[in-house]
Amino acid sequence: MSTVRERLLNEVSHDTDTKTKTKVTIVGIGQVGMACAVSILQQHIANEVALVDVDKNKLMGEVMDLQHGSLFLKTSKIMGDTDYAVTAGSKLCVVTAGVRQQEGESRLNLVQRNVGVFKHIIPPLVKHSPDTMILVVSNPVDILTWVAWKLSGLPCSRVLGSGTNLDSARFRFLMGEKLHLNPTSVHGLIIGEHGDSSVPVWSGTNVAGVSMATLNPQLVHKKGDKSEDEGEAASWNKIHHDVVHSAYEVIKLKGYTSWAIGMSVASLTHSLLWNLRTVHAVSTNVQGLHDIKEEVFLSVPCALGSSGVCAVLKQPLSEGEKAKLNESAHTLWGVQKDLKL
Amino acid sequence: MSTVRERLLNEVSHDTDTKTKTKVTIVGIGQVGMACAVSILQQHIANEVALVDVDKNKLMGEVMDLQHGSLFLKTSKIMGDTDYAVTAGSKLCVVTAGVRQQEGESRLNLVQRNVGVFKHIIPPLVKHSPDTMILVVSNPVDILTWVAWKLSGLPCSRVLGSGTNLDSARFRFLMGEKLHLNPTSVHGLIIGEHGDSSVPVWSGTNVAGVSMATLNPQLVHKKGDKSEDEGEAASWNKIHHDVVHSAYEVIKLKGYTSWAIGMSVASLTHSLLWNLRTVHAVSTNVQGLHDIKEEVFLSVPCALGSSGVCAVLKQPLSEGEKAKLNESAHTLWGVQKDLKL
Amino acid sequence: MSTVRERLLNEVSHDTDTKTKTKVTIVGIGQVGMACAVSILQQHIANEVALVDVDKNKLMGEVMDLQHGSLFLKTSKIMGDTDYAVTAGSKLCVVTAGVRQQEGESRLNLVQRNVGVFKHIIPPLVKHSPDTMILVVSNPVDILTWVAWKLSGLPCSRVLGSGTNLDSARFRFLMGEKLHLNPTSVHGLIIGEHGDSSVPVWSGTNVAGVSMATLNPQLVHKKGDKSEDEGEAASWNKIHHDVVHSAYEVIKLKGYTSWAIGMSVASLTHSLLWNLRTVHAVSTNVQGLHDIKEEVFLSVPCALGSSGVCAVLKQPLSEGEKAKLNESAHTLWGVQKDLKL
Amino acid sequence: MSTVRERLLNEVSHDTDTKTKTKVTIVGIGQVGMACAVSILQQHIANEVALVDVDKNKLMGEVMDLQHGSLFLKTSKIMGDTDYAVTAGSKLCVVTAGVRQQEGESRLNLVQRNVGVFKHIIPPLVKHSPDTMILVVSNPVDILTWVAWKLSGLPCSRVLGSGTNLDSARFRFLMGEKLHLNPTSVHGLIIGEHGDSSVPVWSGTNVAGVSMATLNPQLVHKKGDKSEDEGEAASWNKIHHDVVHSAYEVIKLKGYTSWAIGMSVASLTHSLLWNLRTVHAVSTNVQGLHDIKEEVFLSVPCALGSSGVCAVLKQPLSEGEKAKLNESAHTLWGVQKDLKL
Repeated sequence: MSTVRERLLNEVSHDTDTKTKTKVTIVGIGQVGMACAVSILQQHIANEVALVDVDKNKLMGEVMDLQHGSLFLKTSKIMGDTDYAVTAGSKLCVVTAGVRQQEGESRLNLVQRNVGVFKHIIPPLVKHSPDTMILVVSNPVDILTWVAWKLSGLPCSRVLGSGTNLDSARFRFLMGEKLHLNPTSVHGLIIGEHGDSSVPVWSGTNVAGVSMATLNPQLVHKKGDKSEDEGEAASWNKIHHDVVHSAYEVIKLKGYTSWAIGMSVASLTHSLLWNLRTVHAVSTNVQGLHDIKEEVFLSVPCALGSSGVCAVLKQPLSEGEKAKLNESAHTLWGVQKDLKL
Repeated sequence: MSTVRERLLNEVSHDTDTKTKTKVTIVGIGQVGMACAVSILQQHIANEVALVDVDKNKLMGEVMDLQHGSLFLKTSKIMGDTDYAVTAGSKLCVVTAGVRQQEGESRLNLVQRNVGVFKHIIPPLVKHSPDTMILVVSNPVDILTWVAWKLSGLPCSRVLGSGTNLDSARFRFLMGEKLHLNPTSVHGLIIGEHGDSSVPVWSGTNVAGVSMATLNPQLVHKKGDKSEDEGEAASWNKIHHDVVHSAYEVIKLKGYTSWAIGMSVASLTHSLLWNLRTVHAVSTNVQGLHDIKEEVFLSVPCALGSSGVCAVLKQPLSEGEKAKLNESAHTLWGVQKDLKL
Repeated sequence: MSTVRERLLNEVSHDTDTKTKTKVTIVGIGQVGMACAVSILQQHIANEVALVDVDKNKLMGEVMDLQHGSLFLKTSKIMGDTDYAVTAGSKLCVVTAGVRQQEGESRLNLVQRNVGVFKHIIPPLVKHSPDTMILVVSNPVDILTWVAWKLSGLPCSRVLGSGTNLDSARFRFLMGEKLHLNPTSVHGLIIGEHGDSSVPVWSGTNVAGVSMATLNPQLVHKKGDKSEDEGEAASWNKIHHDVVHSAYEVIKLKGYTSWAIGMSVASLTHSLLWNLRTVHAVSTNVQGLHDIKEEVFLSVPCALGSSGVCAVLKQPLSEGEKAKLNESAHTLWGVQKDLKL
Repeated sequence: MSTVRERLLNEVSHDTDTKTKTKVTIVGIGQVGMACAVSILQQHIANEVALVDVDKNKLMGEVMDLQHGSLFLKTSKIMGDTDYAVTAGSKLCVVTAGVRQQEGESRLNLVQRNVGVFKHIIPPLVKHSPDTMILVVSNPVDILTWVAWKLSGLPCSRVLGSGTNLDSARFRFLMGEKLHLNPTSVHGLIIGEHGDSSVPVWSGTNVAGVSMATLNPQLVHKKGDKSEDEGEAASWNKIHHDVVHSAYEVIKLKGYTSWAIGMSVASLTHSLLWNLRTVHAVSTNVQGLHDIKEEVFLSVPCALGSSGVCAVLKQPLSEGEKAKLNESAHTLWGVQKDLKL
């Protein structure tokens, strides 16, 4: 018996050759994981995308829904499974899975529970893709990136966290709104611990190389002179406050954040997979930088390429900024030292 | 007092000139509406996107979340409001809002309730954008596109429904899987009523112009000869069955469908806004076509451009296919004639 | 002494890891080669592009000019050299180099001279990238693809010619103009020998699955009845005539063809590198297909992926179409058999 | 008689509605004009592109060659004519036409001859597209942008010159090479007169907000101390020297420059047409800025949107930088004042 396929096609070669494969795995298919998947697919960054989750039904539903859009994409293969074999040959694994804080739960306890989750995720990822890079998105991202690194056995440069890349994007959008300029033309970085303790580096914030601090010196050095400059500096500092609170605000309004983190992760994925050596604020091992003694991960500007973190940028920071980073480092290490890996 | 903005910028001109604006409004910010928004934004099809919904909190949350991704997009403006004034100047309005069927509710009753919803949506859209096109995605899409047309007062060509464009994409993906070919190289259309009564046009299904019906004639004319061809034809007909059921399947597995319909709507938006005159199966007024007497909307292949439906394709259909379309037309008209607009 | 670079960056890892590299080499930097390079770069298909040519000055000029546009691209590396070492690790090599026909020169002589050129190109390409695919664009493309295959020692599936992919694109554009439809919605293939002897497969030409031959049967079977259908069929057949002559026409008007062949090659590159299994008419070994006895390369529809030609489509052809292909095969073999490789 | 088209299509509406049209005209189809056209088409920035030139044959050849690539583009219409009627309804007109300096010809004479050319270009462009913006690429770009403005009668904000946008892109690429970073992460602007007298603003040059001048103060203030810093500063200053000379170098090597200027113009087109308010160094009226008294056009950072130059950035410049700009202004005015418009 011959089928339509046999009547139509002479098979010539089998594409077991995976040499041109740029495969990305996403672990965790909640709102964040799916927004990452959709952004990576629609921006044509990878030609194979694999999803992994423990909830088989939801997973199959999401995979089918994405596959049904294949006609509109430029992707060779979209797949998903609860078995990590589906991730084999990944160049990058994005981890969005994790448990959420319960009422009254200590931070240590929360992290310890997530260590338990990561023990089921990281080793099988590395087993099936020994050359992979790992990008951690799950929160608290700085500690969990350290955990992922420890569990992975990979070189430090190949394990990084999405960190303050999104915080920086929000910062640039809000400054752009205030100046009525496109955010791509407003430059500024938020570094340090992702969340409430993050640090905006006002000294480097600029438009076309014109430092905001030159335009209003009180952005960097507060004089307490009740001048108009001081008043305006406060309105800019409120932007950092708004960045810190915007995640809470979005969660309060729609229940979770998804689109912006998805696009932010797609941007990191692009630099990593395409070896672009573009600079992003991501969570990396900062021991030895800015007088930090502890082995902790915090966000600082890094050049990202096909080997992961290619280089870390040494920003000149004020004493105040350094102090905040060191304070975060102490706090993080305080949790990390008691974790059971 | 001078601000950072005044110190930095000499304003030269105000962009009240909206001549290059390609604005799309999306009404309804459920999973479908947001997947449409994200697809349109990430594929850089429009430079302004407005969202409208009655749920102000969720709306503000979604708008903020999209705006926070602005750095990664090429969009001039993302906005949202419960007030339709925000939609002014739209070139295309995508309607995804609507109420769902309640247990035991008749189809007529469901549609009548959605007429009530559309009465609050369509007239304000047309008031603020008298030149807009309207693309209806809400279900039952064929009747609601007719309703939107009636309520809009717009020329028929400017109101269309997403119809079987997605069904056709699923059809091509599933055939591509079976043939191990990219869906863009497997051609086939599903026409008629979106949903259970849709009609696959096997006579036109082809790869590189090679008709599937030539390769297995029983795809079109069933002989009942229990031959191998008959068996294989059944396996292909199962694909249409799978298309019809895939929406139910995805809903059962993940609770709703979103990504594929979002990408499908983005593809229609592209053809409409960019005046591409590309052919898609969309829901349009088919009165007078294929012996249909009733004023109903059903999906047939249409060329889409900046004036909406530019041309309808006259496919030669078998008697059986025509009969199915006419049956759908009777059913739809049976509901429409009793609606109170 | 420390440099700005050392003061700014802590180098963490070196990107000797080339695992995510999708490198394309282009040999020959005439108008065609450069149009290929620019199309591949601007469509973000590869992350490394290498150019090779014997004219070192012009080569350096073109490489610098492309590099100066790096800010606007998403490419990791653009490089060029007269030494083939620069091509190492390519996944695809596009060959556009070759000598042109001199006045009064026989075809055999022309091809023999190009064999001489290819002897300096193909072996070093394969030496530096043993796993590469080779896409031949130089004319006469069908014979030179066979030559490249013979010189390469690669499996047949990994060496292909751009063949009638561009002829088909021109065919679809011209039919689209006549129907006032986007060329992506007008389907039709030109197969066989690239150039004057190419064969339009009218039986498979269609819009939305509606065969042009159904709409005007005289497109396939000429009756000689001087009917209106015959007259209109002639106007369609003129389109094939225009396709054949359009290359000559463009060359007469502007001196060479470049943009369309460049975009056509970028489209093939996309399918090959991204493993898309999309169907294109390309020049491949057709021995055994359509009763062809000779070992010659002619264009037929093929599915292209990361292993090159994944499958060849068996189109049902008319006796007349088969006869034309066989005639081309005889002619090509007549030249090939006397070549000195 | 009915044609295939009539048998296939029911025309529903005519796309005389041009409300979503984003049309760009390019005047001059030399290497620069065509590189602009190809970049704009391949990056999907406009949906209609018109070419104008006096050489009808070459023009028809280029238009046909681009049209033959339509299948691979997302463009509604590509057209060309020697008659400016073809440009009607353009949102942006890019002028690349002009005569070249003859041996021994004075600059004034060259410019006067180009005024003659522009008198045949600018008025018909404005006649057919009274709302257009005009982007001048022809050299000497700063004077010719002033000429185009004078001849156009348009508001100053709607006439701009490509200026040092490309010089800045080259500057960022060369600094990126030295730092082994992607040029998009290395920020720096070259302003002033396009060409030998351009001014690199070292004070604003930075990576991730870290000023290069902080890392090596002698980049801004030369001490003449023969220190290692002075030596390294010289190696950076050589980059500006290389930028200035790179156009000459590329012209010497390949005969002209094309790809980088084409991509640079596409980038400006994107910001203008999509109303992005992105900041670029372009040539604009600088009278009153940086103590400049003359009505001349020089490049300074500007926010570009759908009304042209939306805002000019007031960079704090050193006295030396200001002096150079004023010197250029004197020189330009020296030529302009004697021109016969």
